[in-house]
Amino acid sequence: MSDFKYDIIKSIGTISESPKGWTRELNWISWNGREPKYDIRDWAPDHTKMGKGMTFTKEELLELRKLLTSSES
Amino acid sequence: MSDFKYDIIKSIGTISESPKGWTRELNWISWNGREPKYDIRDWAPDHTKMGKGMTFTKEELLELRKLLTSSES
Repeated sequence: MSDFKYDIIKSIGTISESPKGWTRELNWISWNGREPKYDIRDWAPDHTKMGKGMTFTKEELLELRKLLTSSES
Repeated sequence: MSDFKYDIIKSIGTISESPKGWTRELNWISWNGREPKYDIRDWAPDHTKMGKGMTFTKEELLELRKLLTSSES
């Protein structure tokens, strides 16, 4: 894997948990010391490994919230 | 890329748009004819290419909505 650092500034919550204990979480993460971004990602138990994920700006999360609350999705 | 089919059953909305016209969207997508899943993904203009994304179950989106509405994130 590439050489990068991350820092979970704020743990916002868990979205789901797999039978093997991986959790899908929403966090506020600083990557390589940069300004933190919101991050939805799968994590191994105790955060020993990270899986696939996406980062979001605050504006994107606000739009997403709007979509999730206005539709019956 | 691998050989797969997808069908956007329902377009729920756009989360953001990049300067190059790629959109980050929430859709309800059937992959390879399977039961549809919610999908957050980046798309090129006119959906000619798809970028990185994640799929979510309905339960996951409901949890995510809960996190987004209960925090001031």
